[in-house]
Amino acid sequence: MNRAELIKQIKAKQSFLCVGLDPDMTKIPAYLMEEEEDPIYTFNKQIIEATAPYCVAFKPNNAFYEAYGLSGMESLEKTIKYIKRNFPDHFLIADAKRGDIGNTSTMYAHAFFERLEADAITVAPYMGIDSVKPFLQFENKWAIVLGLTSNEGSSDFQLLKIDNKDLYLHVIEKCARWGNEGNMMFVVGATKPNMLAEVRKVVPDHFLLVPGVGAQGGSLAEVCKYGLNKDVGLLVNSSRGIIYASSEKDFDVKAAAEAKKLSDQMKEIMNSSRIYK
Amino acid sequence: MNRAELIKQIKAKQSFLCVGLDPDMTKIPAYLMEEEEDPIYTFNKQIIEATAPYCVAFKPNNAFYEAYGLSGMESLEKTIKYIKRNFPDHFLIADAKRGDIGNTSTMYAHAFFERLEADAITVAPYMGIDSVKPFLQFENKWAIVLGLTSNEGSSDFQLLKIDNKDLYLHVIEKCARWGNEGNMMFVVGATKPNMLAEVRKVVPDHFLLVPGVGAQGGSLAEVCKYGLNKDVGLLVNSSRGIIYASSEKDFDVKAAAEAKKLSDQMKEIMNSSRIYK
Repeated sequence: MNRAELIKQIKAKQSFLCVGLDPDMTKIPAYLMEEEEDPIYTFNKQIIEATAPYCVAFKPNNAFYEAYGLSGMESLEKTIKYIKRNFPDHFLIADAKRGDIGNTSTMYAHAFFERLEADAITVAPYMGIDSVKPFLQFENKWAIVLGLTSNEGSSDFQLLKIDNKDLYLHVIEKCARWGNEGNMMFVVGATKPNMLAEVRKVVPDHFLLVPGVGAQGGSLAEVCKYGLNKDVGLLVNSSRGIIYASSEKDFDVKAAAEAKKLSDQMKEIMNSSRIYK
Repeated sequence: MNRAELIKQIKAKQSFLCVGLDPDMTKIPAYLMEEEEDPIYTFNKQIIEATAPYCVAFKPNNAFYEAYGLSGMESLEKTIKYIKRNFPDHFLIADAKRGDIGNTSTMYAHAFFERLEADAITVAPYMGIDSVKPFLQFENKWAIVLGLTSNEGSSDFQLLKIDNKDLYLHVIEKCARWGNEGNMMFVVGATKPNMLAEVRKVVPDHFLLVPGVGAQGGSLAEVCKYGLNKDVGLLVNSSRGIIYASSEKDFDVKAAAEAKKLSDQMKEIMNSSRIYK
């Protein structure tokens, strides 16, 4: 999916919500575990169908599939195929945080863009240019580079000062030169929303993938205050807050309600920022 | 495998060679592609059997299996089971460069340590403490944290100066506090051997996993000059230089010869450093 198509979807739906698909067998409804042959896939299908009207993107997190070995990877492949077939207008992010020497990153790019048909993959920047560039060689595919993450440990290295500027800003500034607004985004966590203002000085036009709203404590209003640009420029992710809203048979209904709540707030923010269809 | 067992293996074999298992279908012998149902597994089995006498560790690189989807992941599982069954004294490193927020890193730790039964996994440090710590919670399992990598892009961020010290040294220093010499190693590339001296000032006793000897141009003698400690403290990896020594039917014989060459040099170095059995 290219940038124009993504912006079109966001404006048409008045939502920039991304639903994170992190299926944890200890948290998904018990009856699915008993009744279903592939409970992860069934869980995902129902979550996807219920939340699709309120979001523009889905983000399966690879770890939650790899943890269940081959059968987990099969659930992931089926989930992605299900999205591609039934919701082709949704942006599909493989949250895999890959990054390795050039020939190895190239193998990962094939795996995620060609085999799994994801639109985007999250990429760890520590290894530098040849670990990121292979993900930028595919038409209408995206590398989403870790900038400032939403977790406790983000302060260990990302906030180290170099020439009076945090490392994460150096990372975003340098990586932005390797790609462009049409093939690169950055992860910037919602838990430090004021830092989005610093990020916007460096990359005013890039899309930012913002995790940490909901279970991790970030505020949507704060994120938008500092991060919104004229094209919206944000994909705000919620995983646990949506998909585990209920552990009963109504889990999909409750997930839809949580997604709608965020999407309603987004609509209001877009309207008051005068971003219309 | 614990530290004492690893050191015992190294001293017994007079080798600290790690063989990287990066099976690329465009490079493995053509006849295997035609004749074998699972050419990757067959290729790996022959490489493992041929090189096992000369190495103490194997390191499958996940990307090269993920690139082939489910069948690739099946080849990886079979390869690991084959090593565990037939060469249980070899140290098994999953080169996956994972790292994510706490709950996600925990899922990866289960995937690699419990499901795949690897002894160690390579870990990307950018996300900080909660991305690394979940890998330190398993007895006799190891996190191998990226310090200074062997690729071109390693200078982009790893060599940025903070308080007059390179970022990679800050990373190694801080991460070392989260674990100990019995559950943590560091990746330090062979392409900048003099920097190993700096690393040894910070972590004199830790094992270092050293990629970049061979195809990437690093020198074994230089690596040992700066990196060897009283327990050896090094696992030197070679992938392409060994496994693609020939693309004919004799590929395993040629791989063994390359592995033996490195292992002979290692024996000499250990002897002249007076590290005996």
